[in-house]
Amino acid sequence: MSLSRLQSYVDAILAIAATLLILNVTVTGSGPLSHGLVHAWPSYAAYAVSFLTIGVIWINHHAILRLIEQPDPLFVIQNLLLLLFVAFLPFPTHVLADALQSGHGAAAAAVFYGISATLMACSFNALWIYASHGGRLLRADAPKRVVAGITRSFRPGIALYATATVVGLFSAWVSAGLYAAITLFYVISGSAFSRE
Amino acid sequence: MSLSRLQSYVDAILAIAATLLILNVTVTGSGPLSHGLVHAWPSYAAYAVSFLTIGVIWINHHAILRLIEQPDPLFVIQNLLLLLFVAFLPFPTHVLADALQSGHGAAAAAVFYGISATLMACSFNALWIYASHGGRLLRADAPKRVVAGITRSFRPGIALYATATVVGLFSAWVSAGLYAAITLFYVISGSAFSRE
Amino acid sequence: MSLSRLQSYVDAILAIAATLLILNVTVTGSGPLSHGLVHAWPSYAAYAVSFLTIGVIWINHHAILRLIEQPDPLFVIQNLLLLLFVAFLPFPTHVLADALQSGHGAAAAAVFYGISATLMACSFNALWIYASHGGRLLRADAPKRVVAGITRSFRPGIALYATATVVGLFSAWVSAGLYAAITLFYVISGSAFSRE
Amino acid sequence: MSLSRLQSYVDAILAIAATLLILNVTVTGSGPLSHGLVHAWPSYAAYAVSFLTIGVIWINHHAILRLIEQPDPLFVIQNLLLLLFVAFLPFPTHVLADALQSGHGAAAAAVFYGISATLMACSFNALWIYASHGGRLLRADAPKRVVAGITRSFRPGIALYATATVVGLFSAWVSAGLYAAITLFYVISGSAFSRE
Repeated sequence: MSLSRLQSYVDAILAIAATLLILNVTVTGSGPLSHGLVHAWPSYAAYAVSFLTIGVIWINHHAILRLIEQPDPLFVIQNLLLLLFVAFLPFPTHVLADALQSGHGAAAAAVFYGISATLMACSFNALWIYASHGGRLLRADAPKRVVAGITRSFRPGIALYATATVVGLFSAWVSAGLYAAITLFYVISGSAFSRE
Repeated sequence: MSLSRLQSYVDAILAIAATLLILNVTVTGSGPLSHGLVHAWPSYAAYAVSFLTIGVIWINHHAILRLIEQPDPLFVIQNLLLLLFVAFLPFPTHVLADALQSGHGAAAAAVFYGISATLMACSFNALWIYASHGGRLLRADAPKRVVAGITRSFRPGIALYATATVVGLFSAWVSAGLYAAITLFYVISGSAFSRE
Repeated sequence: MSLSRLQSYVDAILAIAATLLILNVTVTGSGPLSHGLVHAWPSYAAYAVSFLTIGVIWINHHAILRLIEQPDPLFVIQNLLLLLFVAFLPFPTHVLADALQSGHGAAAAAVFYGISATLMACSFNALWIYASHGGRLLRADAPKRVVAGITRSFRPGIALYATATVVGLFSAWVSAGLYAAITLFYVISGSAFSRE
Repeated sequence: MSLSRLQSYVDAILAIAATLLILNVTVTGSGPLSHGLVHAWPSYAAYAVSFLTIGVIWINHHAILRLIEQPDPLFVIQNLLLLLFVAFLPFPTHVLADALQSGHGAAAAAVFYGISATLMACSFNALWIYASHGGRLLRADAPKRVVAGITRSFRPGIALYATATVVGLFSAWVSAGLYAAITLFYVISGSAFSRE
């Protein structure tokens, strides 16, 4: 498996998953359309958060692949697992947006989104640990500073998502705000370590 | 982040967003199918306008990337924001087509489409201003004439969409006609500045 | 606009349009599922015909681009128009499959599919005539035999689809059979002129 | 037709088909959302199995294309047929997940999934036999050990899927378990022969 073909399959699935998110944005309820369009704002916010989350994964995945010498079969499978969780994201996004809009099952929806995001973070960390541990798949000239920066940036992901998931048991809105904040954190941190 | 990978992610999302538009074209109402298929013409028109709008963005984005030396992290994030608004377009397109067909909420739908398109134009202008201001990200050999041509072509976009949005408060049909006219204007202008 | 970027946008939209076709395949009606799955065969057939039609367009478009020296802006716009009609195909495919299954509006659906396919054939012919007339965009070393072969292969497309469209006024099933036959004809002819 | 363009069309359709799978995952039934989200587990499992199946096809297809010297027209058509069956997979996946969740028509759904998967395995085998028989399309330097490994790995596919299909007549759950087991078998075997 060549790096470039792995990269283009990953990019394609990330791009598709991000673009499919819009199919789950809908106006519900009776009443005038203007009211429905305003009332649907949690759907727009959920769309934006998940769209940017996938965008950040794309940026970070690119930063990783630039350090890889040659993918091995297990690394390819780990990429498939990461994609499995990322491509799943439109579903919990839809469930959470609907629940926040209707007020029914918001806690369950926030926890469900959090579990999906936590599994996604786990699979991304696993992939990176596998590739970088002892420099297993890394290029000989991979800058140590960049490798350490990625590790440092990834490490809190699981804990952050797990915390927001538990918060969802008590308040769906606070939990949803945390998901947005985590994405914002990674937009900034991701843009930081993609720097040369 | 390499130019070519940025380019292929942008292209993928534009292609997917354009192709997803068709999923929102449906025949509604009772009565014979032939009547429903004719009656659905606003859906076909909305599909064509949004499809060509995305196509023009693709052409113009290509014209921009040919002038860029090397994307920096902020430029990548700005591209994600542009994509966020472009990938959102299928939703207001669907809302507008449905409202024009049913006659319910047409003003709200026209304004909503206009706000989405205006935000899209803003993010495209922001990206270009960031890249071209003082030649920040431009190649040393970027032809001044082409750079000025893009700036001149982009400048009216926000005002045009904002005007059509305000018109939507008074007449959804006139507003929709303006959206179509803006796209036509950019098809012509876009084809002009993609010339060598 | 570079040939390779045009090619990858065209390929992406063709691939997406072909893959979206499956979203419109559904089982309708009450009764046991086994009966519904068998009864839905017109949906499977319509899926296969449109999927292969898009596949043939992909093969033929590739054969064309191999002969092009450099796309000009009008050629790019003509490609957008071709894509507009190809990406529309999932809708008439869905309408035709539903009408054949339910028996309601089959004639209207067959004519509608035919109009879409005829417009698609027209835009493909227009694109080819523009590129090849007087050798406008062709490479200096484009083999005359291949150019003539494409022209000969494309010429009957419009007439074939127009005929099948008119037949749809009298029998939707015969019309649908003709659409399948045209696709089969192009699978064979397409595979013929993609030969070195 | 160049190898690289065939490869990118195949990759695009595989990526899209895999990502579309999520659109068919839904929560049904009344009752609290938390219950519905748990109760929907067969949908998640079906999503994961089909997603990984397509991923394995992508890995194996890549292993094949690396051995090909130059695709001929018939090989391209055979690839279209393979894609036709792979892009169909979201439909039987949806049907099977729904039937397992609701308990209605589970046998029919399991058999239907199996027929689709068997046809997919047949078209993949046909493509490989055509390409490899007598070394027809293979590169002169294709390692005999790899060629034999692919043949050995593909051979049981049809029989495995056909067996699981027949089992579906008696128990949908056992049949579904077998589909999952076959995918797991190919994840391991696929990762094996993609090794250098």
